[in-house]
Amino acid sequence: MNGNGGKLEILDTTLRDGAQAESISFSLQDKIALARALDGLGIPLIEAGMPGATPKDTEFFAAAADLRLTNSTLVAFGPTMRPGGKAATDTSLAALLAASTPVVSLFGKAWRLHVEKVLETTLDENLRIVRESVSFLAAAGRRVIFDAEHFFDGYADDPEYALSVCRVAMEAGASVLCLCETNGGAFPAQVAEATAAVARLAAGRCAVGIHCHDDTGLAVANTMAAVEAGATHVQGTLCGFGERCGNANLATLIGNLQLKRGIGCIPADRLASLTGTVRQVAAICNITLSGGAPSVGRRAFAHKGGMHADGVRKFASSFEHVKPESVGNARRFLVSEMAGRSALIDRINAILPGLIRDDEGVGRVLARLKELEQRGWQFEGADGSFEILVRKTLRPYPPFFELERFRLVAELSVGETHDRNTSAMIKVSANGEEEITAAEGNGPVNALDRALRKALEKFYPRLAEMKLTDFKVRVIDTGAATASIVRVMIESTDGARIWNTVGVSCDIIEASWLALLDSVESKLLHDAESAK
Amino acid sequence: MNGNGGKLEILDTTLRDGAQAESISFSLQDKIALARALDGLGIPLIEAGMPGATPKDTEFFAAAADLRLTNSTLVAFGPTMRPGGKAATDTSLAALLAASTPVVSLFGKAWRLHVEKVLETTLDENLRIVRESVSFLAAAGRRVIFDAEHFFDGYADDPEYALSVCRVAMEAGASVLCLCETNGGAFPAQVAEATAAVARLAAGRCAVGIHCHDDTGLAVANTMAAVEAGATHVQGTLCGFGERCGNANLATLIGNLQLKRGIGCIPADRLASLTGTVRQVAAICNITLSGGAPSVGRRAFAHKGGMHADGVRKFASSFEHVKPESVGNARRFLVSEMAGRSALIDRINAILPGLIRDDEGVGRVLARLKELEQRGWQFEGADGSFEILVRKTLRPYPPFFELERFRLVAELSVGETHDRNTSAMIKVSANGEEEITAAEGNGPVNALDRALRKALEKFYPRLAEMKLTDFKVRVIDTGAATASIVRVMIESTDGARIWNTVGVSCDIIEASWLALLDSVESKLLHDAESAK
Repeated sequence: MNGNGGKLEILDTTLRDGAQAESISFSLQDKIALARALDGLGIPLIEAGMPGATPKDTEFFAAAADLRLTNSTLVAFGPTMRPGGKAATDTSLAALLAASTPVVSLFGKAWRLHVEKVLETTLDENLRIVRESVSFLAAAGRRVIFDAEHFFDGYADDPEYALSVCRVAMEAGASVLCLCETNGGAFPAQVAEATAAVARLAAGRCAVGIHCHDDTGLAVANTMAAVEAGATHVQGTLCGFGERCGNANLATLIGNLQLKRGIGCIPADRLASLTGTVRQVAAICNITLSGGAPSVGRRAFAHKGGMHADGVRKFASSFEHVKPESVGNARRFLVSEMAGRSALIDRINAILPGLIRDDEGVGRVLARLKELEQRGWQFEGADGSFEILVRKTLRPYPPFFELERFRLVAELSVGETHDRNTSAMIKVSANGEEEITAAEGNGPVNALDRALRKALEKFYPRLAEMKLTDFKVRVIDTGAATASIVRVMIESTDGARIWNTVGVSCDIIEASWLALLDSVESKLLHDAESAK
Repeated sequence: MNGNGGKLEILDTTLRDGAQAESISFSLQDKIALARALDGLGIPLIEAGMPGATPKDTEFFAAAADLRLTNSTLVAFGPTMRPGGKAATDTSLAALLAASTPVVSLFGKAWRLHVEKVLETTLDENLRIVRESVSFLAAAGRRVIFDAEHFFDGYADDPEYALSVCRVAMEAGASVLCLCETNGGAFPAQVAEATAAVARLAAGRCAVGIHCHDDTGLAVANTMAAVEAGATHVQGTLCGFGERCGNANLATLIGNLQLKRGIGCIPADRLASLTGTVRQVAAICNITLSGGAPSVGRRAFAHKGGMHADGVRKFASSFEHVKPESVGNARRFLVSEMAGRSALIDRINAILPGLIRDDEGVGRVLARLKELEQRGWQFEGADGSFEILVRKTLRPYPPFFELERFRLVAELSVGETHDRNTSAMIKVSANGEEEITAAEGNGPVNALDRALRKALEKFYPRLAEMKLTDFKVRVIDTGAATASIVRVMIESTDGARIWNTVGVSCDIIEASWLALLDSVESKLLHDAESAK
């Protein structure tokens, strides 16, 4: 099938090239969460940053030793050494080694114009740089992926020189010659031709790789053309995020190559996690995933046209090129209740043991979940809210308290300082008694949180043990701007336990309030259970 | 170059296939505005709906007589007649004629499976249906585009039958055989092979067309493969909107084929309107355009990485495959705290020309940027706020208005519905006059936005042109939970321009307010500049 026994080696560069996309900026925690998500999907190589370039990248590689990934190997990324220098004393190469990853991506120039005009050195000096940088890293025991920057522009301009850069890297010990379509302007036939030339040069002595950008909307097509021409190493980002128009979208490529061509990219049993992982990665990047993203988008299997819905009901391949479940996605007009039940039953039994798959209660929970998810709720990361939903749906649920009303006032006047400029008045009742109180805060959520707990501590003193530890806001449907739907996720802890809750509304105050309510309820619930 | 003298006939189906996308729904006014925008761009054919299918489509074709388009011809879309019927008495064909367009798109079955399982008739009856429908419309003086639905699945399944459907349509008088990749699951080689077979069949007697969907991320590549194989008629939607993952993106195709291959799609002098028209069409569709859209996206020529910014400054083709101005877009260097003076100076000069690298003003802007970024602001995606910051720092900045104060009240009581439960009172002054007003909204941002613009429209009526199109919230420091710092980014448009603004505070209401203020200021500033 290809030179690698029908298998590709996938490298995800969300943490490196993805971070070069506008409006993406990762914290250390984000980077760790991303690496874990990609590891869970079984992506073999994770390019995780440029050590030494920013303190955050250096910090990540230092923390990486404790990550203990199961499926993925981390890759550090960096440039060839400086012109006129020595490998042994080059700071970039030293930083690459200091990252202590078994694999490194080393990028170098393959376009003579770039050598002369940007690197401002001679063609021969560039060859020396490539040769000595690769052999230095290889001698230090690293597996070296050589990223030939601007390879396709370079090949169009001066094929002999572009190939000589690849030859030098190979002879110096590179394990992969990765051809970078850096500017994203190439078309598939051009990519196929140049890749085939490198594959002939490599002749099985080292692997050929491909790295494409989407500036002509052809990153996926160009990557596939390179694979057909002999590339067995494929770089991209899981959601397609990256510099300018983005990188080759790995989720799309995995769908096309693994599902439709039988070329292995990730372990077969992970394919069904594709949609979930893509959505998780997009959430960490805080980028709204396009609803039309192939395979994994919310609309990818949504049928609106009456004739299409009818056709799909008659036979699925009528308007679906693959089975939505194969990539963990779902068709949108049919409620596939049977598929949902088996997935749910374990989670429900962890809360209320003893239910079986066909209990009508399971159906009720499923129906309630689908109804809420339709409106933008998401329970995957909200165990606290999920537990309350399950208990309220399946068992009598005596409320711990009732909200009578709240009133929130935020004011801003010229020349004022803005500290504690929001106040919340709240009235609740519990055990037949009423309580009305108020609190101030830095903004509406803070004010509501303080007021609610102040009112309830009279009835439930143990609420003093809990606090909010994280607060996330996500705008879900960006079509209608300020009237969009907002999802708020809150993380809370009482020292012993950590729980997450969710609230959704077109009003950010109401969404926050609903998540706060569940958070407090979850604390009261667990205190009551443990007192039994 | 191709069988059409190096020119393609482009058909935009935003009004028809685009309307089948989730969350797109057009009013009559939207449809008219869209047709005018496409006409302005010089798109030859506009597929405008299915007359008779919905009252809105029928109404549009009735209104179309008065449109007086300059460059575009309207096309009505409809199915072949029903099995067992007669063309002369078929209601669908009658509705097509009643639309009175000079050109019609007639769709029929080309996949035997669909004929038998969905249409539920015989293969021969389907051929009769196609033949008699086409010749009926041709006899009535219509130019007929025959859309061969599922052509590529049909060709893979039973090539002889798929080709016989095309032959029958051609012999009955079709002017274009448009091959539809309805399910979006085909790969370029397959599209090229089947298109070439139809091109041989047509042998110049009628044109071959292509209509692709993006379910494998290959709609653009498949369309280009078909063009290389002989197609001279290309269908798609200007922004790529459409059923499921969308249609072939015409803006991308125009950029690729016209700009990079010299194949004419629209009049050459309209190319520079491409970006503006795409943004206008996206605004009418009320869909947020992907920043990464090839050629026309906001990020398409945005450089963030230090080495990339440096390279582009040395020579543009370094990291740009085409000139941004050629499609009406612009290069952007993203401002981030790592940017030094040289990165900043180009952006500052785009706003206030004539500053040099060592001006102390540049130093003041840099210092202000660093101070704000330290507190969580981010200007790389907020050109509107950046411009205001630069102007305020470097020049006297007479304010357009002053905020006296606002007061926001949100209430929730038991049993209440939550629509419009937030009200904002606002007092501003401008030109020595005061204005106090109030508005309600779905949440605080919506209420503030309405109130602010209501108060200011008295002084600046052109504010009615603008609207918010995107709203993003990011909690920056998650350590302190509800007292964390919140960054709000707002995207706005007035149809002609898109701009982004940012606000940061520990209070989400204040952060939103600051981003709203900049958004309105940016509109006022540009209106004032253009009035000069």
